Amino acid sequence: MQKEDLVECHKRITPFVHNTPIHTSRLLDRIVDASLFFKCENFQRMGAYKMRGATNAILQLTNEQRKKGVVTHSSGNFAQALSLAAKSLGVKAYIVMPSSAPQVKKDAVKEYSGTIIECEPTLEARKAMADRIQTETGATFIHPSNDLNVIAGQGTACMELLQEHPDLDIVVVPVGGGGLIAGTALAAHYFGENCKVIGGEPFEVDDAYRSLLSGKIESNESTNTIADGLKTQLGDKNFPLIQKYVDRIIRVNEEEIIEAMRLLWERMKIIIEPSSAVAFAAVLREKDIFKNKKVGIIISGGNVDLKNLPF
Amino acid sequence: MQKEDLVECHKRITPFVHNTPIHTSRLLDRIVDASLFFKCENFQRMGAYKMRGATNAILQLTNEQRKKGVVTHSSGNFAQALSLAAKSLGVKAYIVMPSSAPQVKKDAVKEYSGTIIECEPTLEARKAMADRIQTETGATFIHPSNDLNVIAGQGTACMELLQEHPDLDIVVVPVGGGGLIAGTALAAHYFGENCKVIGGEPFEVDDAYRSLLSGKIESNESTNTIADGLKTQLGDKNFPLIQKYVDRIIRVNEEEIIEAMRLLWERMKIIIEPSSAVAFAAVLREKDIFKNKKVGIIISGGNVDLKNLPF
Repeated sequence: MQKEDLVECHKRITPFVHNTPIHTSRLLDRIVDASLFFKCENFQRMGAYKMRGATNAILQLTNEQRKKGVVTHSSGNFAQALSLAAKSLGVKAYIVMPSSAPQVKKDAVKEYSGTIIECEPTLEARKAMADRIQTETGATFIHPSNDLNVIAGQGTACMELLQEHPDLDIVVVPVGGGGLIAGTALAAHYFGENCKVIGGEPFEVDDAYRSLLSGKIESNESTNTIADGLKTQLGDKNFPLIQKYVDRIIRVNEEEIIEAMRLLWERMKIIIEPSSAVAFAAVLREKDIFKNKKVGIIISGGNVDLKNLPF
Repeated sequence: MQKEDLVECHKRITPFVHNTPIHTSRLLDRIVDASLFFKCENFQRMGAYKMRGATNAILQLTNEQRKKGVVTHSSGNFAQALSLAAKSLGVKAYIVMPSSAPQVKKDAVKEYSGTIIECEPTLEARKAMADRIQTETGATFIHPSNDLNVIAGQGTACMELLQEHPDLDIVVVPVGGGGLIAGTALAAHYFGENCKVIGGEPFEVDDAYRSLLSGKIESNESTNTIADGLKTQLGDKNFPLIQKYVDRIIRVNEEEIIEAMRLLWERMKIIIEPSSAVAFAAVLREKDIFKNKKVGIIISGGNVDLKNLPF
């Protein structure tokens, strides 16, 4: 992907997404001994950066394709993002979700007018059902993270961060399926001035950390983390970008994630989901790397169940 | 107080406080059928608008007065605000607090280097102790809400709101001790274009509502509300301003406060305290008044105990 592709992507999605605010905190700066710039994608439409990639992917379809709709399998933020992006653009969205998904997540998709198709709670069943929807309806499949249009869209958050603060030394993001970190890495490469990209990942689902070590895409045997947006693994589209442009991945434990989340809630007065706290937890864990640096941190989303908080 | 006094006040405090962001939400606009502009004082330094008034009050002291310090009695946000404002300006702050105040509030004052003096948990004991501190130290007493310098400072939040949106039809604020609503009313009068000011107040502590009816300052026999910042009563400095410039006060019940708070947390992803939710609860209760209007809402603060949420 070229610099021009990202510039075009940003122009394309700008009418449909928010240029989210960048918050700072003297107290958190003091704790880390660095200048921190939090790009608040929790204030993005539907509450997460995924709105960017979903919007770009739909806008890249032909009129013929748009008429037939889009389909994805996700039980998280991408399901809501694709539903809302599709609704905004007058396109039908089919969302394949495991029957075991929490009612609150099903309700969120319905609120944005997504059509839910339930399946058995296995990865195979999800893929099979998504294939069937494609065959039956002609809808275009859009992967939540392993799709170059999605990756470019996610990269626009970092583009906007660098537009306001071009001299960032490092940008830190959470790592799940790899779409955000791959897009961020491209944006930092093309628009930063020697800006490094570092990922934060829970020890409990450290597939990306292990993938960078082994040189092939690794998966997680168990996914026992509070950061429920980060349980997925990398794909063949984003992994090469991550290998090429990401400096390193810092792993954090569950207590560190909860403590970082609590600090951001208490001190910045913003509601962020546990997956978002992983990037800041990485900064807190390895303060020496960030000391005296200008550091961008992408707060990926704010969709939490208020009845089920870890504090 | 003249327009010029507010302009000078804003200039005076600007180096020491944040010009807080104004957030909007399409979804909340749809719910109310109005255009809402939330002035986010929960992102103010120490987490509440009270930082403005405390800073202005200290900046108005002579050098001689500053050397002797300031004193107030408060167990809430004003205690923290005066402590932090004093610290920023190199002034000593004595905070009289009832011995029964929660440890978390004492800790917050200590964090901002305020000197806590405990007293019996009665209003008389608080006043007596504050008098004693003044006599012993020569410190200047600064009232949390019934002080014209404090009132002017609190009004600067509305000034900033009107600088960005000069054509607001209405500004809504919570009513506690009367400092915020009096300052807001002055700012709307001098800087708005026929901008009304409406207060939100819990039924459980509706002293301001009753004061406007009776024409004299009323007090509350009980203070059984979740909006713990609104339990205090009006004073002789702010009441005349409220009588002159405030359009009306809308009372809300406890369920409405909690529901408004939940909506703002879930939809806007911002952490606000229950007292802040009272203004939005008033808008939700009396939607007809606000229909098709441009409405400013001052989110007064975000200091909550995350271990003790009403959801």
